[in-house]
Amino acid sequence: MDTAVIGQEILATCERLARHSDDTDALTVAYLSKAHRAVAAELRDAMEAAGMTVTVDAIGNVVGRLACGRPGAHTLATGSHFDTVRNGGRFDGRLGIVLPIALARHLHERGETLPFDLEVIAFAEEEGLRFASTFLGSSGLVGRFDASVLERTDAAGVRMRDAMLAAGLDPDGIGALRRDPARMLGYYEVHIEQGPVLLEAGEPLAVVTSIAGGLRYQCTVTGVAGHAGTVPMAMRHDAGTAAAEMVLALESCCLADASGTLVGTAGRFEVVRGATNVIPGECRFTIDLRAAHDGLRDRAFDEVLAACRAIAERRGVRFACERTMQVPATPCTPAWVDALADAVASLGLPARRMLSGAGHDAMMMGREMPVAMLFVRCGNGGVSHSPLETMTAGDAGLAAAATLAFWRRLAH
Amino acid sequence: MDTAVIGQEILATCERLARHSDDTDALTVAYLSKAHRAVAAELRDAMEAAGMTVTVDAIGNVVGRLACGRPGAHTLATGSHFDTVRNGGRFDGRLGIVLPIALARHLHERGETLPFDLEVIAFAEEEGLRFASTFLGSSGLVGRFDASVLERTDAAGVRMRDAMLAAGLDPDGIGALRRDPARMLGYYEVHIEQGPVLLEAGEPLAVVTSIAGGLRYQCTVTGVAGHAGTVPMAMRHDAGTAAAEMVLALESCCLADASGTLVGTAGRFEVVRGATNVIPGECRFTIDLRAAHDGLRDRAFDEVLAACRAIAERRGVRFACERTMQVPATPCTPAWVDALADAVASLGLPARRMLSGAGHDAMMMGREMPVAMLFVRCGNGGVSHSPLETMTAGDAGLAAAATLAFWRRLAH
Repeated sequence: MDTAVIGQEILATCERLARHSDDTDALTVAYLSKAHRAVAAELRDAMEAAGMTVTVDAIGNVVGRLACGRPGAHTLATGSHFDTVRNGGRFDGRLGIVLPIALARHLHERGETLPFDLEVIAFAEEEGLRFASTFLGSSGLVGRFDASVLERTDAAGVRMRDAMLAAGLDPDGIGALRRDPARMLGYYEVHIEQGPVLLEAGEPLAVVTSIAGGLRYQCTVTGVAGHAGTVPMAMRHDAGTAAAEMVLALESCCLADASGTLVGTAGRFEVVRGATNVIPGECRFTIDLRAAHDGLRDRAFDEVLAACRAIAERRGVRFACERTMQVPATPCTPAWVDALADAVASLGLPARRMLSGAGHDAMMMGREMPVAMLFVRCGNGGVSHSPLETMTAGDAGLAAAATLAFWRRLAH
Repeated sequence: MDTAVIGQEILATCERLARHSDDTDALTVAYLSKAHRAVAAELRDAMEAAGMTVTVDAIGNVVGRLACGRPGAHTLATGSHFDTVRNGGRFDGRLGIVLPIALARHLHERGETLPFDLEVIAFAEEEGLRFASTFLGSSGLVGRFDASVLERTDAAGVRMRDAMLAAGLDPDGIGALRRDPARMLGYYEVHIEQGPVLLEAGEPLAVVTSIAGGLRYQCTVTGVAGHAGTVPMAMRHDAGTAAAEMVLALESCCLADASGTLVGTAGRFEVVRGATNVIPGECRFTIDLRAAHDGLRDRAFDEVLAACRAIAERRGVRFACERTMQVPATPCTPAWVDALADAVASLGLPARRMLSGAGHDAMMMGREMPVAMLFVRCGNGGVSHSPLETMTAGDAGLAAAATLAFWRRLAH
């Protein structure tokens, strides 16, 4: 296989798909929009050209099947999503669809078969832009679809159920989409890293060990407001400086993590009704904590919570926090991680193992079957969810080669 | 003089004045409102009842004069403001008017004269609530009135000049209000502390050594926004945690000040366009720095600035700041500070000396003549600019006794 050629082909297809957008000056593809249906149609054509049998399921997922011809063969599912965030990137999601289609065509043209049935799934919705229905496509395939989202309306007041019916889809057929885990080999996903790790390391590929689960909290610090001129420093109960110390405690805790997979962010931070000449009486901030393992993440939160309480106690302010999200981490299947690392190493490349801090369809699929993920280097400082998101044809080609090597190593 | 009786009289007058308000459920008295004019009328009556000759000047200041009858005598001015902030306190400003009126009546009733002419000035405007024209009353008396404020409009679109004309005042006569410093002994002001120092110390009175000058900055930290899940801690350039470290550096610098007069506040602090799952790319905060001496304050700012720049350098973020206010400190006249402290001590009270962190009319008057200020203990934790602002009749009586003892010590 000529990796340079297949890499260029993958990039060209992603560029071609990016012509379809809901916005004229940005790449935005919302579930079931005109651009979304145009992308689905192109993917269907590409799958058919690669020799696959294609169906569009009840959710709008485009599913291409390349049968191995062996009776009773298990199925390896692979894919990602083709919807985007607002003003998104060309490779986020789509790389994981376009790459296996290119590989399937390569195999089909040579008359080569895999020792399992291959299913390339282009998930119709993962980002949740239109209906806040994240992981819609993959949730249906693992029997975890939340039917209440069908009643949600978009910004224009259109119900999801009605949008699906108008697109010729069958909302009442979603329950039947569930794949029987006993028939599945598992799920594999190629994704652009969406971060700077591989770029900084100068390496093209990484094997994902786990998809981090998120823990989010809304925190409130209540001190005593006062005149910025008349209350001596030693008599203050400043909610702002107390909260500042707390977010630094969060940062220190995560920096100290030896595994390097713990990340903590205070993304919002605000003095409530702040004024230049008033000592802050109330301050609010958020905590977002993620790690490869829930135990590590939860222990870190306990540590941060203890630090916040000690800071509050020492400064004579009140600290309260409320959990707003808790999603468990999805560890990738250890034998598959090893096989994928072996496949990467077989190309003469470093087989870095790393955490996925962002959520992916593999997180949902991994609830029901073995799962593995390959990360591909992200250019431009690692920026994603942005028109600046970029990758090279060379890296895409290496990812294709590693994927094929991995597939050939899979037990069946 | 029976200090208990005069103290009760002072508190009763402040309570009576507080019946007049622009708001039905809070004490709000804006320049030239109906409530403002009602308070002015009551003050005029009280001054006349105390044997004073009363005039209302071009700005609306109510000025009562108690002549000593000695040809060529100098004048001691004393007073404060009778306007309030929105939802203000009953003693802020008014104590400094009502107390000398009560003393003047005491002297008048006994036929006792002072060795100088006494002028009690009820300043019509200091807070700037209606036209953002702070220190309006006192600025006219020291020839520092800014005529451009006459063209400012209030929230209802009324020009200050028109409001003054409607109230029978003479905006074009403000220039003639300037007092000739050669004819003035100086200015003395009694004010509620508006902070917790005396309350915590268990002392009723303090002698102000200096009125702090303010220095204000708007600061901006620019880092690199990123995905809260995919950027490892060590690769971040988080504008929020950088700014958090900076406001703690401000706090540390002020806490370390040996003089105890340096106060620094970050009253506003906000992650710009913050989101829970996004690493802060931009953060803004304010700095308010005050001290007894401008040199101390400016050196502190240089130290904080150096700390912020070092933090920015170490964290790979940009730091910028812009000065939004710079007001010089007004030191009280040393001989007057000593005489006032001696007067307080003569009552058997501790003569604590302290900085005024808030601005007062004395700051403006002090630009042109000797100045002294007496602080009176503030109850309820030291809260001011609030309906919770309170003081005791006993403390008001002690303040009156100390004031009379000070007046008797004044050289003439």
